[in-house]
Amino acid sequence: MSSPAPAPLDLSGDVVDLARALCDVPSVSGDERALADLVEAALRRCAHLEVLRDGDAVVARTGLGRAERVVVAGHLDTVPIAGNVPSRLEGRGADAVLVGRGSVDMKSGVAVQLAVAAAVAEPVRDVTWVFYDHEEVDSSLNGLGRLAREHPAWLAGDFAVLCEPTSAGVEGGCNGTLRAEVVVRGRAAHSARSWLGLNAIHAAGEVMARLSAYRPRRAEVDGLVYREGLNAVGIRGGVAGNVIPDECVTTVNFRFAPDRSVAQAEAHVREVFAGLEVRVTDAAPGARPGLDHPAAAAFLAVIGGEARAKEGWTDVARFSALGVPAVNYGPGDPLQAHTDGERCPASDVYACQRVLTAWLSGEPAA
Amino acid sequence: MSSPAPAPLDLSGDVVDLARALCDVPSVSGDERALADLVEAALRRCAHLEVLRDGDAVVARTGLGRAERVVVAGHLDTVPIAGNVPSRLEGRGADAVLVGRGSVDMKSGVAVQLAVAAAVAEPVRDVTWVFYDHEEVDSSLNGLGRLAREHPAWLAGDFAVLCEPTSAGVEGGCNGTLRAEVVVRGRAAHSARSWLGLNAIHAAGEVMARLSAYRPRRAEVDGLVYREGLNAVGIRGGVAGNVIPDECVTTVNFRFAPDRSVAQAEAHVREVFAGLEVRVTDAAPGARPGLDHPAAAAFLAVIGGEARAKEGWTDVARFSALGVPAVNYGPGDPLQAHTDGERCPASDVYACQRVLTAWLSGEPAA
Repeated sequence: MSSPAPAPLDLSGDVVDLARALCDVPSVSGDERALADLVEAALRRCAHLEVLRDGDAVVARTGLGRAERVVVAGHLDTVPIAGNVPSRLEGRGADAVLVGRGSVDMKSGVAVQLAVAAAVAEPVRDVTWVFYDHEEVDSSLNGLGRLAREHPAWLAGDFAVLCEPTSAGVEGGCNGTLRAEVVVRGRAAHSARSWLGLNAIHAAGEVMARLSAYRPRRAEVDGLVYREGLNAVGIRGGVAGNVIPDECVTTVNFRFAPDRSVAQAEAHVREVFAGLEVRVTDAAPGARPGLDHPAAAAFLAVIGGEARAKEGWTDVARFSALGVPAVNYGPGDPLQAHTDGERCPASDVYACQRVLTAWLSGEPAA
Repeated sequence: MSSPAPAPLDLSGDVVDLARALCDVPSVSGDERALADLVEAALRRCAHLEVLRDGDAVVARTGLGRAERVVVAGHLDTVPIAGNVPSRLEGRGADAVLVGRGSVDMKSGVAVQLAVAAAVAEPVRDVTWVFYDHEEVDSSLNGLGRLAREHPAWLAGDFAVLCEPTSAGVEGGCNGTLRAEVVVRGRAAHSARSWLGLNAIHAAGEVMARLSAYRPRRAEVDGLVYREGLNAVGIRGGVAGNVIPDECVTTVNFRFAPDRSVAQAEAHVREVFAGLEVRVTDAAPGARPGLDHPAAAAFLAVIGGEARAKEGWTDVARFSALGVPAVNYGPGDPLQAHTDGERCPASDVYACQRVLTAWLSGEPAA
């Protein structure tokens, strides 16, 4: 497909118009180049920013020698389009709603980043603005992960804000996630002579019993409460309609609070299923909210609200792994993400713009 | 593939040599024609038999006006060959063992049928010899089932013997079989917020608990004891590694004694899983052994042994459905069936030949 080159981005106009312009440049994961080029070009027009590029990730930063450096990050890609591009604006002004793919996850957040990056030329904290690719696909492709591996210095900072949708509230840290297979073995036999076998599916009732009896913990970490969960997310067993099954495999997913390491989470799962065969298939650490850091405290003071715990796993954990405490803060309801009717209130976008501007300018929020 | 036309079958020679010749004409299900042609031609050389043919099924019968008619049946097809054709004979005489595909299931039985059909020209009971196709594949293709639908008069009789392998012992009747899906439903949610969902796999623990607690019945029917069994033979559930599953389906197989009808078996399964959704997917009735019939009693008297209950479902149930009591009786260990090393003792073959000859001739067994 070839289409006319999109217009340059206007970072100094209305932020909702900017969000809309971003939505109208399709950037499904793997196809972020056109949008990354536009973002890079717009940032290069800002004399106060040094601009770096790696693949389809763009990094822009101030170098004012401030005592603190904060990182504000967002991804450029979206899940596949579902007849919802170009975007449309319903209503007007502060009551308007931006509708279309990416409006929530997360081009409205990217618009806020770009507008504030351009507008606040002399922030009271040095800022590194990060725009990255491949967030919506396999974790091994994630652009932020690639930067962390190949250019860790680009992500250095005292505190990070990830502009994923949180309905413009602060969601601190995130739970970790671990998946494991719990394997129960039996002995095959013809089902007409079942007493010669040992039914692995029947025996897997023990796995279900332990899952049903499991009482997940609520853990307070740095002042936020995280809810854990241990759940079967898949089960398989059986060879044929006339064979006593010799294996039943239950896949479980443990979402664990950020006060546990991956190793501790694994030990816990093995304890829950003591006596059974447990194979860990993948895991990602959680992230502590780090709200006791001065930059985080200042951010919360500007917002004037309470932080909540982030339940889902997000890329804040990548900052956490680099030793940078991080929170999620962005426009739009996260439950709208990935839905065909994805829609973001303009009021959220303006609120986030005001907060980030005030925080970086050293002013109280509007 | 084209191969030289096989030699005509010699029904008057050694029965083990005949079994070997049958094994050496491949007849995997769907490819029975060459063997059916040989069987038909050999039977047509017997002046005392009327020969009928339908597809690759061959029926031959006496018409002496006896007070009783018995049916002796076997299938011509085998499961796929696994480097075990042509057959070979290990050892000699009564100690010999015939090794190869079909030696047990069931060309040794077919050899006995053919040898006795040719040898006993004036049986004391009229005999219908049935040789059929497609036993080892989907039930809808079964040649005996086709004859029952299209030529039920060909299968008419007072008692039937199916020469499936029983190590030359009588196995009466057979259990029925019923398969059903037990469906447990939940409510999907993201596994990071599992408390918003309802886990169908956890809930399926109830299915496992009922299966584990189930105590199968042993039922005496017409003097034989049948062991029942209710088992999970498959389980599936789960949408993705981060989704609380909204459905878990356990497939169960109920093997039921022939004193229950299919309807009664279904009612029993529904009672076991009361309160849960049960979908019956397929069922086949069992068969009563009918050993109280005079022809059956005479058969047992010749053998001089006790009958056992047949646990697996076999085509005796098709006779039972036609109102003809039936037993399994044939050479070879049924546990050898379908194995690559399938092997049948010659002594079993000779024993079956003696018993059928004596029974049909009205003489005591040798």
